[in-house]
Amino acid sequence: MAKEIENLWREVRELSLGTKIDRFDSQPSPVKFLRNYVSQSKPCIISKAITHWPALKLWSDPAYLTGALSDDVVSLHLTPNGCADAVTGDSDLCFASAHVEKVLFPEALKVVQSSCKGLKVGYLQQQNDCFRTEYSTVALDCDGDIEWATEAFGCSPEAVNLWIGTDDSVTSFHKDHYENLYAVVSGEKHFLLLPPTDVHRLYIEQYPAANYSYHRLEVEEPVRHVPWSSVDPYPSPEKEASERLKFPLFFDGPKPFHCTVKAGEVLYLPSMWFHHVSQTPGDGGYTIAVNYWYDMQFDIKYAYFNFLQSLSYKSSSLNPILSWGEDEDSESSDAEV
Amino acid sequence: MAKEIENLWREVRELSLGTKIDRFDSQPSPVKFLRNYVSQSKPCIISKAITHWPALKLWSDPAYLTGALSDDVVSLHLTPNGCADAVTGDSDLCFASAHVEKVLFPEALKVVQSSCKGLKVGYLQQQNDCFRTEYSTVALDCDGDIEWATEAFGCSPEAVNLWIGTDDSVTSFHKDHYENLYAVVSGEKHFLLLPPTDVHRLYIEQYPAANYSYHRLEVEEPVRHVPWSSVDPYPSPEKEASERLKFPLFFDGPKPFHCTVKAGEVLYLPSMWFHHVSQTPGDGGYTIAVNYWYDMQFDIKYAYFNFLQSLSYKSSSLNPILSWGEDEDSESSDAEV
Repeated sequence: MAKEIENLWREVRELSLGTKIDRFDSQPSPVKFLRNYVSQSKPCIISKAITHWPALKLWSDPAYLTGALSDDVVSLHLTPNGCADAVTGDSDLCFASAHVEKVLFPEALKVVQSSCKGLKVGYLQQQNDCFRTEYSTVALDCDGDIEWATEAFGCSPEAVNLWIGTDDSVTSFHKDHYENLYAVVSGEKHFLLLPPTDVHRLYIEQYPAANYSYHRLEVEEPVRHVPWSSVDPYPSPEKEASERLKFPLFFDGPKPFHCTVKAGEVLYLPSMWFHHVSQTPGDGGYTIAVNYWYDMQFDIKYAYFNFLQSLSYKSSSLNPILSWGEDEDSESSDAEV
Repeated sequence: MAKEIENLWREVRELSLGTKIDRFDSQPSPVKFLRNYVSQSKPCIISKAITHWPALKLWSDPAYLTGALSDDVVSLHLTPNGCADAVTGDSDLCFASAHVEKVLFPEALKVVQSSCKGLKVGYLQQQNDCFRTEYSTVALDCDGDIEWATEAFGCSPEAVNLWIGTDDSVTSFHKDHYENLYAVVSGEKHFLLLPPTDVHRLYIEQYPAANYSYHRLEVEEPVRHVPWSSVDPYPSPEKEASERLKFPLFFDGPKPFHCTVKAGEVLYLPSMWFHHVSQTPGDGGYTIAVNYWYDMQFDIKYAYFNFLQSLSYKSSSLNPILSWGEDEDSESSDAEV
């Protein structure tokens, strides 16, 4: 089984994905987007997708945002380490969610900007359509949808989320059951991407859900388990050797696709792709992104994924039979749509 | 493994395919065709897709065709039983191909019309772009492509094939590495369809290639093996019991999708779908179809298929664990695009 699964990882790269994320300058037609990316479950980056948004100029200035949103209450996610929705702990691992506070925007932004890892990290986000519910005051600074994507998917976005954070905040590997158009407005977002075919490489396990109450992590009662990836792609130097031993399918297999999405750019992240997200702040001292979730199709690709996930990766020997010898650079490339 | 594979058969039907082939009245837009069918690897039938073709009226009259093609040499496929490209034989099974003769069209059509099973069955076909090479005289009676499909796939057809036969000719279960738009011009075509997920149910084995030389079947020297489905979905009454015992995954699993494509209709048959084709003649005493093969994408769906095919269906008990209790009618249904 190990051999067949590894062949799948290899073949999807050789036949379809290549080693770099396609990148092009102007927005694709809905037909080309569907044909070359959605149908094939293939990410791409569009460079000049949102150059007409007022937000691109306005939102780098904290004074503009705090003025415009002076009376708006928003969801502020607080953790000691910037790792919300992540597997946390030294021995008794759990799935830790942030402490969420409803705060007036100017105060919330101050907390984000003064984040200090190990003490208190603030991240303005809420994946419940927060851009349209909490930030409606500045809604007109962006488009309400990504027009060519709406035409391609045949529906309006199911949710639009806003993200304001610093390089202290990191989102751990996970997948979403949505088609995702991810627009960066200020700063840069760094993605590690793995296709759904690589599900075994993420070591998804069941972890008890826990919530931060300031610095204390409280496991939910009654216990609720959350399936989540065990892999931290950037372990600390002292942990690296042991992490590599624990997760060889991740560390010794094909490299994740790596891409940086800059202000003004949009990443198409297909449904069911695993992604890990970190960020570099822009001029305002923060990174801002708006992402559009469109309903996905639960089609043959999804059925194949569930089938693959239901199988155990079993090597015939004691060690996995990984035989990867890549040294390609997997930054994104230029491509024609 | 058997359980997981059977779950895949079930899930792709429950989530995506349903029990009937979608059918609609007018041609879809390229975007809707890509979104709802190509991307999802889902067949559909378009009823009024080629009503403007002169061929629809003209080709039911044998006198028109023999007049128009009086000087054209065409490829006539001859078998004793109407089963070309099929597993044949009583004990030493082989993959039998027809005897192909180049004949003037009027003579060839006579052979097709006077086909007699057990003696000599003629089928006018050649899957090498024969419509554009051998039948160019009547090319203007049809469109050179299916316009909305060409726009969706972003390319012209790689091959266009013509098929003229009677109910004596049957095409056995197989798949093609092309996206297929199959237009019926005269009579009816009957399809049995199975999705790529069901590959194990076709019992694909390696058979030595053989060619008919009139009634004699001559195995190729040196021996060349062809992978082909062992399953005849319509075994003769005396063979039925033994065939059901030999191929339980086919006969006891979910029913193939069944659809009839009538003159004037077009079937979209996604790449890698298994299909078995039989026919009912129209007024001229024959069935005529033109099919357009478009290049397929070797994408994640194709990689998943190869992965699935590389696995063995292994039941933990002596008998397969099939647990299907369908009695739905799987004729095609009406649907909105």
